[in-house]
Amino acid sequence: MLKGNLMFGQSGGPTAVINCSAAGVFIEALKHQDRIEKVYGAHHGIIGVLEEDFFDMGQEDEEELLLLKQTPASALGSCRYKLADPDEDDTDYRRILEVFKKYNIRFFFYNGGNDSMDTCNKISKFMQENDYDCRVIGVPKTVDNDLYGTDFCPGYPSAARYIATTMMEVYCDSVVYPDGQITVVEIMGRNAGWLTAASVLAADKGSGPDLIYLPESVFDIDKFMADIKRIYDEKGKVLVAISEGVQTKDGKFIPELVGEVKVDAFGHKQMGGAAAVLKEYIENQINTKVRGIELSLMQRCAAHLASNVDVESTFNAGREAVKAALNDETDIMIGFKVNDSNDVELTHVPLEKAANTERKVPEEWINEEQNFVTDEFIDYCLPLVQGLPERKLEDNLPKFANLKFVQAGKK
Amino acid sequence: MLKGNLMFGQSGGPTAVINCSAAGVFIEALKHQDRIEKVYGAHHGIIGVLEEDFFDMGQEDEEELLLLKQTPASALGSCRYKLADPDEDDTDYRRILEVFKKYNIRFFFYNGGNDSMDTCNKISKFMQENDYDCRVIGVPKTVDNDLYGTDFCPGYPSAARYIATTMMEVYCDSVVYPDGQITVVEIMGRNAGWLTAASVLAADKGSGPDLIYLPESVFDIDKFMADIKRIYDEKGKVLVAISEGVQTKDGKFIPELVGEVKVDAFGHKQMGGAAAVLKEYIENQINTKVRGIELSLMQRCAAHLASNVDVESTFNAGREAVKAALNDETDIMIGFKVNDSNDVELTHVPLEKAANTERKVPEEWINEEQNFVTDEFIDYCLPLVQGLPERKLEDNLPKFANLKFVQAGKK
Repeated sequence: MLKGNLMFGQSGGPTAVINCSAAGVFIEALKHQDRIEKVYGAHHGIIGVLEEDFFDMGQEDEEELLLLKQTPASALGSCRYKLADPDEDDTDYRRILEVFKKYNIRFFFYNGGNDSMDTCNKISKFMQENDYDCRVIGVPKTVDNDLYGTDFCPGYPSAARYIATTMMEVYCDSVVYPDGQITVVEIMGRNAGWLTAASVLAADKGSGPDLIYLPESVFDIDKFMADIKRIYDEKGKVLVAISEGVQTKDGKFIPELVGEVKVDAFGHKQMGGAAAVLKEYIENQINTKVRGIELSLMQRCAAHLASNVDVESTFNAGREAVKAALNDETDIMIGFKVNDSNDVELTHVPLEKAANTERKVPEEWINEEQNFVTDEFIDYCLPLVQGLPERKLEDNLPKFANLKFVQAGKK
Repeated sequence: MLKGNLMFGQSGGPTAVINCSAAGVFIEALKHQDRIEKVYGAHHGIIGVLEEDFFDMGQEDEEELLLLKQTPASALGSCRYKLADPDEDDTDYRRILEVFKKYNIRFFFYNGGNDSMDTCNKISKFMQENDYDCRVIGVPKTVDNDLYGTDFCPGYPSAARYIATTMMEVYCDSVVYPDGQITVVEIMGRNAGWLTAASVLAADKGSGPDLIYLPESVFDIDKFMADIKRIYDEKGKVLVAISEGVQTKDGKFIPELVGEVKVDAFGHKQMGGAAAVLKEYIENQINTKVRGIELSLMQRCAAHLASNVDVESTFNAGREAVKAALNDETDIMIGFKVNDSNDVELTHVPLEKAANTERKVPEEWINEEQNFVTDEFIDYCLPLVQGLPERKLEDNLPKFANLKFVQAGKK
């Protein structure tokens, strides 16, 4: 029966509930001191492992660990560091093995999206090839909701609730003047339109977008303008929800229609700015007030609007990761299955599969005109945004976990 | 004892609680059928009066009128129509008098900011000069919080709570990566910095901006860059809150530093876009990730984060307007006084004064460096953001009033 220490790290873009997984992992792991002596939290994900920069989570008060459930973003710090392919360069992997040996890490849990599951998978393979016994488990997260093998990803339901609520409020604000208004709201999602599609929940309540554009469909600016003109002529007001990641048939993002776009360290084109470009484009063709709005970071960090389905499922996923590892499971990602009564069941997804498949909004949930989503999407999304999490407030403002972060590495 | 009908209109930019005043006016007025036979709601403010386009609010169910308390923006529709100076052109005033006579309007309440109080005042004077007996009362609103004679303006406390909460969450999101980030958040406020200053509540909780720039101070881009560099060198992360309305000593708004700015129908330069300009400016000088965020419409329509102090004070202001008018008061605006125990008392402010004085953040509440606000501001603002309003939800999303809008004018 494997005994040793546990290392948990957070990676990629933050969400409103990523710390719920952390709370689940820490609180459950600290109950099993017969098997898990030390529970470590890596500072800035895998970088913390490489640099021996991590915290002794056993030093924290349980009350503060529970406050992680209402603290958005990545409390331990995140990273955008991508490990090399071990066949090409195994330096990092050898270093990780060295650190694992030095600190007797026998349970390694990594929290993130597609890239992080890939990292997890590669580390696990390397440990096996080097006969180092270690349980490696992926804990999912991503507002993008594009991980394979799970009905939804932690962070998505809360972001969806934020988007639906905000679109309802912005709708009210955007229809008050007699002289018309066109409002374009840009929503996150480079390749998958799950977040943007969530705006249909607002439309379903009568206070939502008239048009919804996802990156799953080819974006045609002439068709887009024709859609807008038709609705503007009819109602005098148009509310549009559009994914930052929509691309023309030539593979251009919207900001690229008017200029160069910056590229980040991974060669990904920087997102954002589509609403501003479309605002100008529309203003040049229709003489009315036009507003461009980016939901920006708010959509992924709005813990104050978290869905309890998200909070509790994510907390339970963290706990399940510990239980599965103690049960000698490895190379899995914890996933979710929403059953017929809309209860969330935990599942185990082979890491290999989760790592390399991107899940998009199904074609049949997008309307024929490719400017809205169908009721099937509402049936999918509405159960996810349910439930009000218990929230401690301080002065009627959020109260976040205040951790000690006791350094346990050599750093 | 004056008897007749009542007309209520909403004007200017919406807020999260503007409909709370409407609920207060309608619910109170409908209790006094001995004095007020018909209660009308003007469609699109004064335009609805001019065009005889208004609704019979007595046809609405009280339950729906109460839901107005949780419905953001202007349910009756707003307008940006500015009446001429009656000494120059009294066409509109003669028309208003005609409509008032035709529908026996003896109580006229107008809901808005500085311009609307001015409208109110001019209409009242005109009625008096023409011996038409009518009680005219201003019901304040404006997220800008810049009305004279009241400790705060309806809409401001809720917007302040939204800004403080959002800044706390954005703070968490903006500090997760080891490689640094500079985040610039643009907040509403053309001439007064009340909204931007509210971000200090987040800083007071340890999760807020490092720098706060208000339009009350002259904006110097070199000083701004020096402030940012100093904090970036020290912490690797900088969070900035800046008013959209800050101006250089030459009277230029930030977007004007890089190009022309559009002018609206009133000759006001269009706001918005400062964060995007500053993002580029900073990126050109500091090699790190920079994000520009505009809180846009969300900050003024986020009813889901309304403060109960705001909701109930505003509702009570609507009721007080009716009571005062029935008590033969006229030419006043309902105001608020926050007493020593932080309870909100209703006051009556002469319309004349409210109409023509803009209230700014006191100089002594801004620090010497002009890049932050003092604890006095916190003492002012914190009591305003208190209290959780009761909220009916539907499917865990907002539930808005669903009014019948029975047309009562000739239109």
